[in-house]
Amino acid sequence: MADQSSDITNGIEQVILDGDKGSTDQQLKAEQKKAAKAEKAKQHGLGKAEAKKPTNKAGPKKGDAGKALISVTATKEEDFPSWYQQTLTKGDMLDYYDVSGCYILKPAAWHIWETIQDWFNVKIKATGVRNCAFPLFVSQDVLEKEKAHIEGFAAEVAWVTHAGKSQLEKKIAIRPTSETVMYPYYAKWIRSHRDLPLQLNQWNSVVRWEFKHPMPFLRTREFHWQEGHCAHLTKEGCAEEVMRILGFYAGVYEELLAVPVVQGRKTDKERFAGGDYTTTVEGYIPATGRGIQAGTSHLLGQNFAKMFGIVVEDPSVKEGEKKPPIHVWQNSWGLSTRTIGIMVMIHGDNRGLVMPPRVAEIQVVIVPVGITAKTSQEERESLYSQVDAIATILKAVNIRVETDKREGYSPGFKFNEWEQKGVPLRLELGPKDVADHSVTTSRRDIEGNAGKGKIPITELNTEVPAFLEKIQADMYSRAEQNFRSHRVQVTNWDDFVPALNSKNLVLIPFCLAEECEDEIKELSTRKEVGDVPQDEKAPSMGAKSLCIPFEQPEGIVPGETKCANPNCKRLAEKWCMFGRSY
Amino acid sequence: MADQSSDITNGIEQVILDGDKGSTDQQLKAEQKKAAKAEKAKQHGLGKAEAKKPTNKAGPKKGDAGKALISVTATKEEDFPSWYQQTLTKGDMLDYYDVSGCYILKPAAWHIWETIQDWFNVKIKATGVRNCAFPLFVSQDVLEKEKAHIEGFAAEVAWVTHAGKSQLEKKIAIRPTSETVMYPYYAKWIRSHRDLPLQLNQWNSVVRWEFKHPMPFLRTREFHWQEGHCAHLTKEGCAEEVMRILGFYAGVYEELLAVPVVQGRKTDKERFAGGDYTTTVEGYIPATGRGIQAGTSHLLGQNFAKMFGIVVEDPSVKEGEKKPPIHVWQNSWGLSTRTIGIMVMIHGDNRGLVMPPRVAEIQVVIVPVGITAKTSQEERESLYSQVDAIATILKAVNIRVETDKREGYSPGFKFNEWEQKGVPLRLELGPKDVADHSVTTSRRDIEGNAGKGKIPITELNTEVPAFLEKIQADMYSRAEQNFRSHRVQVTNWDDFVPALNSKNLVLIPFCLAEECEDEIKELSTRKEVGDVPQDEKAPSMGAKSLCIPFEQPEGIVPGETKCANPNCKRLAEKWCMFGRSY
Repeated sequence: MADQSSDITNGIEQVILDGDKGSTDQQLKAEQKKAAKAEKAKQHGLGKAEAKKPTNKAGPKKGDAGKALISVTATKEEDFPSWYQQTLTKGDMLDYYDVSGCYILKPAAWHIWETIQDWFNVKIKATGVRNCAFPLFVSQDVLEKEKAHIEGFAAEVAWVTHAGKSQLEKKIAIRPTSETVMYPYYAKWIRSHRDLPLQLNQWNSVVRWEFKHPMPFLRTREFHWQEGHCAHLTKEGCAEEVMRILGFYAGVYEELLAVPVVQGRKTDKERFAGGDYTTTVEGYIPATGRGIQAGTSHLLGQNFAKMFGIVVEDPSVKEGEKKPPIHVWQNSWGLSTRTIGIMVMIHGDNRGLVMPPRVAEIQVVIVPVGITAKTSQEERESLYSQVDAIATILKAVNIRVETDKREGYSPGFKFNEWEQKGVPLRLELGPKDVADHSVTTSRRDIEGNAGKGKIPITELNTEVPAFLEKIQADMYSRAEQNFRSHRVQVTNWDDFVPALNSKNLVLIPFCLAEECEDEIKELSTRKEVGDVPQDEKAPSMGAKSLCIPFEQPEGIVPGETKCANPNCKRLAEKWCMFGRSY
Repeated sequence: MADQSSDITNGIEQVILDGDKGSTDQQLKAEQKKAAKAEKAKQHGLGKAEAKKPTNKAGPKKGDAGKALISVTATKEEDFPSWYQQTLTKGDMLDYYDVSGCYILKPAAWHIWETIQDWFNVKIKATGVRNCAFPLFVSQDVLEKEKAHIEGFAAEVAWVTHAGKSQLEKKIAIRPTSETVMYPYYAKWIRSHRDLPLQLNQWNSVVRWEFKHPMPFLRTREFHWQEGHCAHLTKEGCAEEVMRILGFYAGVYEELLAVPVVQGRKTDKERFAGGDYTTTVEGYIPATGRGIQAGTSHLLGQNFAKMFGIVVEDPSVKEGEKKPPIHVWQNSWGLSTRTIGIMVMIHGDNRGLVMPPRVAEIQVVIVPVGITAKTSQEERESLYSQVDAIATILKAVNIRVETDKREGYSPGFKFNEWEQKGVPLRLELGPKDVADHSVTTSRRDIEGNAGKGKIPITELNTEVPAFLEKIQADMYSRAEQNFRSHRVQVTNWDDFVPALNSKNLVLIPFCLAEECEDEIKELSTRKEVGDVPQDEKAPSMGAKSLCIPFEQPEGIVPGETKCANPNCKRLAEKWCMFGRSY
């Protein structure tokens, strides 16, 4: 294939174009060049192997030559950023794109997002939320109407100034979020308290042209999310919905992605600009010991309503009576494809992706094994037809199944490839299994013999669905234990930084004051001179507050317990979770 | 409500900002001002009525004062553009936005799009297509790589030049379509014939900054669509998929939207730039007699593959043999929210929207009736609880049902409002119906007594679903007959323009030559001086070719039948459908 090597070189160049990704790219570049070279050799080998007509000999297994090279080579422990990048690209979830900070979400990733959409749509629609679509563009005047709000986004707004060769009369922004896009219309549409609640949601992408390191799924210039925006007559109704949605977000993580989260409220310093308060689900990445904001639901209060004039007549007004109109109460809430990145970081291992069964595009792969030089053409065909029969059985019970009957690849090569893609369950079928009326099972989430077993063929239709649910539950359970053991309570400041350095999130009694939060960050930052590679950077970061968990441990004595910041003289209000974070 | 009048004025200003919409806006403006004034009066009336506590008297029905004014006032026959605009906005499908050419798709519209997505996803996924997401942005170099292709879009590309206050090093385009976004990655990902077919689709929005009159759903600067892009080893496999997808597009129109379409192939003049040929589904708007392109599926051939270097080794190559690599065969296909506009234009009437039941967000509305001054509080409550009971029955059989128990509005006012929204079936329940153990039915698609009937309450759970399916079928059948009777075959040129003027699409024997097509357009254009209002414009437009229908009438004698263009000396190749069009 003439263009193969240059294609791969293109791939590398795209990674390099993405120049703000730090010095690890240099290592990766060299590594990828080596891999590309070997890949090319492999391709040639495969080309020949493929051309061979089926014989009654086993395939030549030339594909195996490239096995190590196409595998994830970085380890999660030693080089987490490279591991993450390789796991995503080699696992066929994502590719780099030639516009920096933008990524291609491949079908395996998009399937997860569609699964989240379907699940979440059912939940929100049952509570009266309706989906809609507002434009991508927003005029400068409208965007800048709410000052406190836009301050948080101004530096990152992408501006369209030309169409074709014509300069636009006024530049137009691409939405960084849709509060100011939507609320002028809420003012127009909401004419009576009967029009409340107005509960709208949209699934779209927004653009924030960040100049920090981009990172697939976690920090991208265009990202996909849903943004819900509701208006209520009362604060209570509005606040209830904030919490209800937060519960759904926790459900997306816990029920679909097998990811544990802590629910809580952001401190004033960390809340959404322009709103009253922000609730959040916070995750934890064990490999780096960092916290990660996983989804937020905001009570906006009446701030935007006042700015945009969203009012209704007071329904308690009596005939002839005069009462001022009521500003509506608003909330907004968003969950993004960051979900997918968090899931990968938590569950992936050094063999690549590990997909929770409920969101895996392919839940089960069936690989024929035990074909040797002695296997006759008839025996081979019989085995293949049994593989297909098992696939049919599983499809009938709505299992997403794939078969891998490719010739010229060894079972080991195939195992490696499907493991890299994170397929939760592999079924192997060989002559011995057939004789035994069973299949050999290998679960992706548990390595080695501990993850192996057998299922009678007659029980596949019930056992496989149950097994997938068990894998899902086990994945959650392990992640949950891991997270729990890395949330430590600290009351003595001397233990704070060491706890962070041991990859923990840290709960401290906290006064909730913003200046105290700044100070804690400062006190926990390791001062260094010059640049350090990204994966070395985490330990030097200061800790910030992640949330005030709704589930508060005991131990704060009102009027007695002090804030954990040694320089703070205030009393502690709440246990607050701090951590280095994404 | 203090801000009410200014809110409504804002609405009008938005329409006016949308300044390129032609002179009909001026009329609309005056009309809307009048309506706004009356609306304000109505609001005040309602405000008082709402404040009243429930009594055993019938509501004051002050709301009815505004009835005519909030209704669609333009008629489909006399002022189609205003009718269309009012039908969409008053029917709660869409609102105008303060960036010209962009529109807000409200939940009723988005529900239709989601229904299309769900239906289409099932179809394409069953054939191996996988959804994914490529970025919104494309670099200038990549965008302009395929010359013939970009020529069609260049004048309409929106360019991002700034992020925050920083000027970007290189301007970046917002995708007008994703061929050039995606195909560099096809070149990278497709390494062997085993990687084929590669079948990807994305649901997204694209931007084409047109400077012509924008029109909701039909011609908008940002529009939502799906774009499928597949690569195959053989032309046959690729072409088969082109047709399969076209069949799905016809299915979206015929099965979901109750809209008849003609399937065919575009002439060379009208095909997609850069591709081999384009297949299309063509619709017909009876009110204007114009054709409308409703969805296209393109065989791109190997053109893009050559440009982007998408090649595989020839699988027929034998060991030691040398054969050149094969360029893959590609297709692309797109269906947009134009679907919704076409549906509205075909089915809507002078009372507003008429929704086909399968896509209606609300399929059934239940309105309590017969409440008079003599009705006791108990009787009223009993009636309401029976309304709720019926809703529960219908929800249990998956009917999307709404009840309207608002006080202070007369049944007539409510009827009008739900009719305007196009709800396919209204159930009325009054004391007489209760006594009779039945509900009164009124179908939206048939006006007056002909559309009325009764259903026993005990049979609602089976009769209502069946009735909705009957409405769906009837709507399609009427539209189909209408379209059929307006496709006329013409062999004598003298009949061509009169047939167009009688709101027909016209099938003529045609030579398929591009210059002949230009000439037919020229010959059928009514020459006029100066601007004419948009709704007067259609009759002056020249006819263009819409498609060469796959279903060819008889009558062309090879080597004998002449092209219908009187100035053309060539023989006719095919019957070709011409028409004035959107």
